Amino acid sequence: MSHPLPFDVAPWSIGLTDLDEERLAHRESVFALANGHLGWRGCLDEGSPRGAAGSYLNGVFERHPMPYAEDGYGYPDDGQSVVNIPDGTVIRLFVDDEPFDVRRGTVLAHDQRLDFRTGTLTRLVDWVSPTGQRVRVRSERLVSLHHRALGAIRYEVEAVDDAAEVTLLSELVANEPLPRVHPDPRVMEVLERPLNCLGAFVAHERATLVHRTRRSRLGVAVSMDHRVAGPAATTVAVEASGDLARTTVRTTLADGERLRLDKFIGHEWSPSDPADVLRDRAEEAVAEAMHDGWDRVAAAQRERLDEYWQCADIEIEGAPRLLQAARLALFHVFQAAARAEVRSVPGKGLTGAGYEGHTFWDFEAYVLPLLTATAPEAAKQGLLWRHATLGHARARAAQLHLRGAAFAWRTIDGQESSGYWPASTAAFHVNADVAGAVVHYVRATGDDAFERGEGLELLVETARLWVSLGRWSDDGRFHLDGLTGPDEYSARVDDNLYTNLMAQLNLAAAADAARRHASQATALGVTDDEPAAWTAAAEAMAVPFDDELGVHEQHAGFTDAARWPFERMTADDYPLQEHHPYFDLYRKQVMKQADLVLALHFRHDAFTAEQKARAFAYAEALTVRDSSLSASAQAVIAAEVGHLDLAADHLAEAATIDLDDRQGDTSEGMHLAALAGVWTALVAGFGGLRDSPEGLRFAPRLPPAVGRLAFGVKVDGRTLRVDVRAAETTYLLSDGPAVTVHHFGEALELAAGTPTTRQTPPPLEPGPRPTHPEGREPRRFSEAFGD
Amino acid sequence: MSHPLPFDVAPWSIGLTDLDEERLAHRESVFALANGHLGWRGCLDEGSPRGAAGSYLNGVFERHPMPYAEDGYGYPDDGQSVVNIPDGTVIRLFVDDEPFDVRRGTVLAHDQRLDFRTGTLTRLVDWVSPTGQRVRVRSERLVSLHHRALGAIRYEVEAVDDAAEVTLLSELVANEPLPRVHPDPRVMEVLERPLNCLGAFVAHERATLVHRTRRSRLGVAVSMDHRVAGPAATTVAVEASGDLARTTVRTTLADGERLRLDKFIGHEWSPSDPADVLRDRAEEAVAEAMHDGWDRVAAAQRERLDEYWQCADIEIEGAPRLLQAARLALFHVFQAAARAEVRSVPGKGLTGAGYEGHTFWDFEAYVLPLLTATAPEAAKQGLLWRHATLGHARARAAQLHLRGAAFAWRTIDGQESSGYWPASTAAFHVNADVAGAVVHYVRATGDDAFERGEGLELLVETARLWVSLGRWSDDGRFHLDGLTGPDEYSARVDDNLYTNLMAQLNLAAAADAARRHASQATALGVTDDEPAAWTAAAEAMAVPFDDELGVHEQHAGFTDAARWPFERMTADDYPLQEHHPYFDLYRKQVMKQADLVLALHFRHDAFTAEQKARAFAYAEALTVRDSSLSASAQAVIAAEVGHLDLAADHLAEAATIDLDDRQGDTSEGMHLAALAGVWTALVAGFGGLRDSPEGLRFAPRLPPAVGRLAFGVKVDGRTLRVDVRAAETTYLLSDGPAVTVHHFGEALELAAGTPTTRQTPPPLEPGPRPTHPEGREPRRFSEAFGD
Repeated sequence: MSHPLPFDVAPWSIGLTDLDEERLAHRESVFALANGHLGWRGCLDEGSPRGAAGSYLNGVFERHPMPYAEDGYGYPDDGQSVVNIPDGTVIRLFVDDEPFDVRRGTVLAHDQRLDFRTGTLTRLVDWVSPTGQRVRVRSERLVSLHHRALGAIRYEVEAVDDAAEVTLLSELVANEPLPRVHPDPRVMEVLERPLNCLGAFVAHERATLVHRTRRSRLGVAVSMDHRVAGPAATTVAVEASGDLARTTVRTTLADGERLRLDKFIGHEWSPSDPADVLRDRAEEAVAEAMHDGWDRVAAAQRERLDEYWQCADIEIEGAPRLLQAARLALFHVFQAAARAEVRSVPGKGLTGAGYEGHTFWDFEAYVLPLLTATAPEAAKQGLLWRHATLGHARARAAQLHLRGAAFAWRTIDGQESSGYWPASTAAFHVNADVAGAVVHYVRATGDDAFERGEGLELLVETARLWVSLGRWSDDGRFHLDGLTGPDEYSARVDDNLYTNLMAQLNLAAAADAARRHASQATALGVTDDEPAAWTAAAEAMAVPFDDELGVHEQHAGFTDAARWPFERMTADDYPLQEHHPYFDLYRKQVMKQADLVLALHFRHDAFTAEQKARAFAYAEALTVRDSSLSASAQAVIAAEVGHLDLAADHLAEAATIDLDDRQGDTSEGMHLAALAGVWTALVAGFGGLRDSPEGLRFAPRLPPAVGRLAFGVKVDGRTLRVDVRAAETTYLLSDGPAVTVHHFGEALELAAGTPTTRQTPPPLEPGPRPTHPEGREPRRFSEAFGD
Repeated sequence: MSHPLPFDVAPWSIGLTDLDEERLAHRESVFALANGHLGWRGCLDEGSPRGAAGSYLNGVFERHPMPYAEDGYGYPDDGQSVVNIPDGTVIRLFVDDEPFDVRRGTVLAHDQRLDFRTGTLTRLVDWVSPTGQRVRVRSERLVSLHHRALGAIRYEVEAVDDAAEVTLLSELVANEPLPRVHPDPRVMEVLERPLNCLGAFVAHERATLVHRTRRSRLGVAVSMDHRVAGPAATTVAVEASGDLARTTVRTTLADGERLRLDKFIGHEWSPSDPADVLRDRAEEAVAEAMHDGWDRVAAAQRERLDEYWQCADIEIEGAPRLLQAARLALFHVFQAAARAEVRSVPGKGLTGAGYEGHTFWDFEAYVLPLLTATAPEAAKQGLLWRHATLGHARARAAQLHLRGAAFAWRTIDGQESSGYWPASTAAFHVNADVAGAVVHYVRATGDDAFERGEGLELLVETARLWVSLGRWSDDGRFHLDGLTGPDEYSARVDDNLYTNLMAQLNLAAAADAARRHASQATALGVTDDEPAAWTAAAEAMAVPFDDELGVHEQHAGFTDAARWPFERMTADDYPLQEHHPYFDLYRKQVMKQADLVLALHFRHDAFTAEQKARAFAYAEALTVRDSSLSASAQAVIAAEVGHLDLAADHLAEAATIDLDDRQGDTSEGMHLAALAGVWTALVAGFGGLRDSPEGLRFAPRLPPAVGRLAFGVKVDGRTLRVDVRAAETTYLLSDGPAVTVHHFGEALELAAGTPTTRQTPPPLEPGPRPTHPEGREPRRFSEAFGD
């Protein structure tokens, strides 16, 4: 399962000298750059060899027909898939007419490195061509966090030991092939060459391509310009047509002489703006960058990241590879969202075409908590994206004969694009996840305008959905029958605990907000009796509990089901869904992922400590973690109930999912939610951070392997740094008025600039370590992160 | 919904003078001819206008890729679809160079008629061409029950009022278009022109085409020859190539003179025999028929049907249209199976391409009971077909990590071809339906050789499946979790009553047969402890019962579910699955079709009379009959519990499903199981026939609308005729040793040739008529069959 690449260990970067051709797609994902608008996979500059081409604009997709073996009411007709936009990363080098290719000649040295503070991907190559000419190549690229439309590359070639004729072809390449994003080969045919050229333009040394996707009719403009520094005889020629723009730079370098190319690429897209508008915008982005020059562009990148790290940084003592993994995770999540602007973070961010580029519920449930805590403006943009899809969500609810809004299970533009309803349409919890993210964001930021506006509308429309989805039964409880919770090895169950508790939160929050913002609620058509109905449903929400076992159930009747025959499984049986039919998985006690355990975290207020401990132990024994979403959630509750070593083990698994390609699909992109989960495991796990109406609550306890853990959280726009050691924790608020937080239940009034230190209470006595399914014990922390 | 065609009412035929062009596909299904090997839709001879072309050989299909929006373990890769074989029915007529077409010129008279005793479809047309030439056309066709490979047509043209130049093009047409059998347009593309020509042959006046399906590689040979009788100057020319063979007959007819063409068409197919073998066989079938001539071919047809009707005939007094409907049903079921020979009866028989030509569980559950009672040799051939698919079924079970055999939910050749697993893979009851048909067939025929051979193997392999599918729980019961029963508005439920009780029968029968045939069982690898395990599981089988309501549950927990909001439905909401999502249907109390009620019939021994009455009333209130399989089953139990009027109403609905196109899809073929259900409703309903280990049991009671009902049942190869009147019933055994049957529980020893008459006991007092979902009350008998 696990295919580690030999990344080095460094505190603020991650590098690789290896060049394993079979594993290129993995490194390209890890080394991907993005800013929430534009994403570039970390492909080698020369474009070949390559694992998978990948240049994306957030929101640019192609439609395709959805294939069904048998039809059904409400099945979406159209699917959506991310497609490659014209790729501006390609710079092909020729040395004495030999194409530079790491598979040919001799690579004396090769280093590729992603730097979390500069926000750049650098590459150093020392290469001898097949004909014996040695060159040093240095490239550096960034996707600008400052200029949203901008990607930039500095590319430098140096002749070594002898003079060399050098040619660079710096390109925009449209319609690069997409990896296999859909199981149906005929869907892949539809996605072949999705871009139609509307125009190719050359002016001076600038080239611009304007395209439109064939079926989804989205316009895309990509423009490039260059600054060239080289010997006097260097020539530059530009051409552009159809699917290719090319700037050719030719020169002859004496031994030790260098040719440098600064390439600036501007990217715009729109579903409605005409081609000339898109072209203007893309070219203007390039012109600005040409005016600023590389150094200022790079400085602005560093500046934006310094600002981010000032709050977001995690410090860990005792586990350098974990520290690196945590910062890599923070970097990837931030760059996936930073400039998204009313766009979401897809499951793979903008790092790959996995999941067809779709966004799922884990955007709200996993990614937004991290963004809310470290980059709240980016979190807000994500919530605004969901809000912008309300039209689709209302139409979907109406199609399903429900009220309010039913948000898409998987989508790019908000329209439902899922093809297997038991694990999509039935998984209505996505709506409560949206509502939960609204509540959490408003608590963390005090953003009243958002709450009264988009926030209220999201809460109201989802509350309406729950009331129309559920039913009152004779026992006086409100039930949600036949839905699917987060765990993908169950489907269509009654009273999924997670769904019910999140819906409860949703209903209560909607009622509360509607009462507090009565005029805005009235404007949304909220009738006098609606908030009362929401409150009643929330208060009566069914919470399945097995009295005999004394444990909460993942859903009603779950504990009565047959146990999955773990004892008969071998390593080849995992992931179970690839080797066993759904009908059998669904009818047995086996959990793909945290579901019950996620409820223990997100609805920590709904359980006693003992209930949490019992439910956690029960779930651990049945959870196989075939989902990348699982380990981090398990780490959080393991820590809370006192199994700190187990929490560290789960953290180790979460933190290495993409680094070590534990699921075998990092080639298709980074698992953004799992990356966010690394932060969650640290901060909510060992930091014990919980959101509550009374402010943030902390209960920090470190596992023996970690000497110190420090992290930051935004509170009303200011930074709260929390510095945890085994015996004590210090809280420090950056500025502004005092803030109340809780340390193991004790209220602390934190004045700005004054560190407050409190002791860690005596350790919990959690009893024996929970068991796990045979062969599915979590990775050991010491194995992943030990010396 | 209902689109009746104005069929006439006659006791032994069904005819139509109407020519509504919009409704051609419906009439073509009703007028279809078949013999279980070959099927021809009742298209007009000239091939145009036409609703849907349809010439089929049982077992000839094309493979196509199965499209999935999202992939899953165990999903079949390949689908199967029936395709048209070269069509020998086409005879195009030209009168003075004007093509004969009922849409042109003037149709003075048009009558098409299917005769249940001659087994022929006749047509009489009186037509004036656009240029004023009048002709009379008379055609008669049959698909031979005697010569399996043979279809035959007698076609006659008479010039009226004036001399006419007449030309006939008698053809074989390959690759006629298929109607839309699959929702995915790209699947339909694959099914376009599925036949590759391997050879076209002309010798004397005979023409033969040999083809092979492109993907499934099945060879098909169709040959034709003609006898022409006309004026001396008549010329005949034959040509054949590629997808067309054509015999051209030209003549000039004086006023009143006739041209007659007897066309004989031979049909062979094979997955393995080479083209020349197939050609030889098809041509030999034609040669035999040419030797016999039309009259002998037609006489043999009549003879075979006389033999069938001798036992199978139903007599009904007081309801002539019901009588016609019943005989139409008996005719269609018989001709669908008569010469199938180790082939099944697809859901639409050989009358249309609906359901892609697939066979389902209702073959065993609905069609085989009728065949077992009236044409047991045909029933045996169907069971041998299932047995022949054991290889596929064992492989499927292994793929699902189960033991024994898991028969295909929908298939042509035995390989699973379903694309929606919650209503296919999970519907394991098909295996118990197969076992039930084995038990029933052996009881009815005493076919020991079959029982010891194929029967035992079918019972053993299905019993093994159940043991591996189920589980023992702490309550000491044996449970079948997470499976789907017959009702398609529930899926993946625990302890579906029908499934559990049929599995119980299956397990008990397997244990019993394995003990009685120990050496054969040993040869099948049955270990000493297997029969004991089967018996134990059967005896402990969970039977869900709601103690509070005092009623059996369709599945565990069903009575706790929310009731479907029938009160909010309008006519446009039905069929529900086309207007409401599965997730909502599945979680509510609504029954598409008889499921619980089917269990009351098939496992009549497992319930008390009161339990049946309560369960029936409970189910009636929730059953919307969106399936053609429902009404007949409801009729049976309505009659048993004493609601004879309601039984008559359900019967009326069952009997008019295809006649009146009640489901709007008779255009795609006749509903064979629903047709069989007409017999079941009459014989098991009003006749009260039940199968039991002690012999046949009868409890005949007629509804007021029916004065007399007589029917026949084969008992050990002899005929038992049962003649029911309101006050008494007379039993008459044809020949052979005495037979014991039961009349309302009283054992009657029937000696051959001696009528035995018994009184009908006093009427039951069933209480008020059960209610039905609003707007889904069954059709009234008086409305369908009244004067």
